[in-house]
Amino acid sequence: MQPDLSCSYELSPAFHDLDPMDIVWHGNYVKYLELARCELLERFDYNYPQMKASGYAWPVVDMHLKFIQPIRFGQRIRIDARIVEWECRLKIEYLIFDAETGHKINKAYTTQVAVDMKTMEMQYVTPPVLHEKLGVFV
Amino acid sequence: MQPDLSCSYELSPAFHDLDPMDIVWHGNYVKYLELARCELLERFDYNYPQMKASGYAWPVVDMHLKFIQPIRFGQRIRIDARIVEWECRLKIEYLIFDAETGHKINKAYTTQVAVDMKTMEMQYVTPPVLHEKLGVFV
Amino acid sequence: MQPDLSCSYELSPAFHDLDPMDIVWHGNYVKYLELARCELLERFDYNYPQMKASGYAWPVVDMHLKFIQPIRFGQRIRIDARIVEWECRLKIEYLIFDAETGHKINKAYTTQVAVDMKTMEMQYVTPPVLHEKLGVFV
Amino acid sequence: MQPDLSCSYELSPAFHDLDPMDIVWHGNYVKYLELARCELLERFDYNYPQMKASGYAWPVVDMHLKFIQPIRFGQRIRIDARIVEWECRLKIEYLIFDAETGHKINKAYTTQVAVDMKTMEMQYVTPPVLHEKLGVFV
Repeated sequence: MQPDLSCSYELSPAFHDLDPMDIVWHGNYVKYLELARCELLERFDYNYPQMKASGYAWPVVDMHLKFIQPIRFGQRIRIDARIVEWECRLKIEYLIFDAETGHKINKAYTTQVAVDMKTMEMQYVTPPVLHEKLGVFV
Repeated sequence: MQPDLSCSYELSPAFHDLDPMDIVWHGNYVKYLELARCELLERFDYNYPQMKASGYAWPVVDMHLKFIQPIRFGQRIRIDARIVEWECRLKIEYLIFDAETGHKINKAYTTQVAVDMKTMEMQYVTPPVLHEKLGVFV
Repeated sequence: MQPDLSCSYELSPAFHDLDPMDIVWHGNYVKYLELARCELLERFDYNYPQMKASGYAWPVVDMHLKFIQPIRFGQRIRIDARIVEWECRLKIEYLIFDAETGHKINKAYTTQVAVDMKTMEMQYVTPPVLHEKLGVFV
Repeated sequence: MQPDLSCSYELSPAFHDLDPMDIVWHGNYVKYLELARCELLERFDYNYPQMKASGYAWPVVDMHLKFIQPIRFGQRIRIDARIVEWECRLKIEYLIFDAETGHKINKAYTTQVAVDMKTMEMQYVTPPVLHEKLGVFV
């Protein structure tokens, strides 16, 4: 049985995330995705410091965001993040909801690949440390 | 004949755009795309202030970025932006290059839709003002 | 007796707040101050939406930050914010601490003035709505 | 005779620098100061990469900004930056103007100290490399 590779993260936008339309500027969603991703990886003890300690950087190589509803100041949102690929790359899917109404706000994914920090070479399969941390069978 | 709907925009990353890997944090590319997009729309006299004056907001509803090479401090990059759809939505494609070597750094697109600022209703065809500004035949 | 015009706000820095030194970029502290300030003003029902509804904008006109220690990823920090002037302008003082050790990280203040959103005129005394919200005697 | 330790830097704000008041969010001025500072230090061949190569980091330890006028989209601004102290610390003063009218927009300073990147110790006098780069007599 595979472990649960998902988590939920809640936040309210900061004032400085708003644009002149009084809604969150679209580029700031990338920050929200990262907050949820770090929370998820933290659970598996493989957040940024542990990645670094393992000798691998994990740059984002692909990112897609579909904006369905705007986010306003004072609104509470929930980001559901889930790891959907880990064999050759780390792909995470995200759904952002209004935390109260449950209305869908955004749908996104990010893809990361492992880069050996000594050789700076991109890895075409993910290193064993990822599988160990996630507790998955490849 | 359709007009040339493209432009090039050059920049060097700011120190505050860098992350702990000493490369531009992936979310900051969204800012670079916007700089190129505003430059492109400015040429057609339909940048943010003119959009507002025309009664339409143009939120980004879809965005995809493929990261090919990192960007470093001191590096000069060129962003080629081109409008590829304008009938129902405004879709712009971007290619980011190293300005000196010509190596490809990033490939992206953004899609925007018109929203009537009075009714806040999304428009399923783009309003005439866009075609007039772009000088295109629909 | 004057009410307690202070609050504490805790956070951990996001990965995207870090710079190439692996510490929080100094400009991002301004965001942390704002988060604490909004939390404080929220308690008095005079956060950004209520300011707007009251007909006044409150731009920051003066800001000073003294950086004592860096902030690192994974570190928990506490921001103590306190309103110290409200008669002619709204001045807030901040102290940032390491939430665990209590070591001082930063000392700052911000000053805001009321601007009448209809006339766009700066107010040389703060409007009555501020005193009412704060529950202070002038 | 001491060399000219000043420079001017011009820019127009990006759309993503604006807040719901349709003016540049106050925290983004810190980015503008950094752009002018990097331009100034670049002239003396002592920008971020050369600092790093010299074995010193130069964190900002003190920062003050006085906001006089707002900055709007489409406005051209000029930042005059000038090194005013270099013996014990690197202090830079800034004046931001409207590039067309010459009206004053902001007055600021930043103070940086040298930190030896091997020992992580703060230096109470600036290292000789700074004087050599600036071409100043101490």
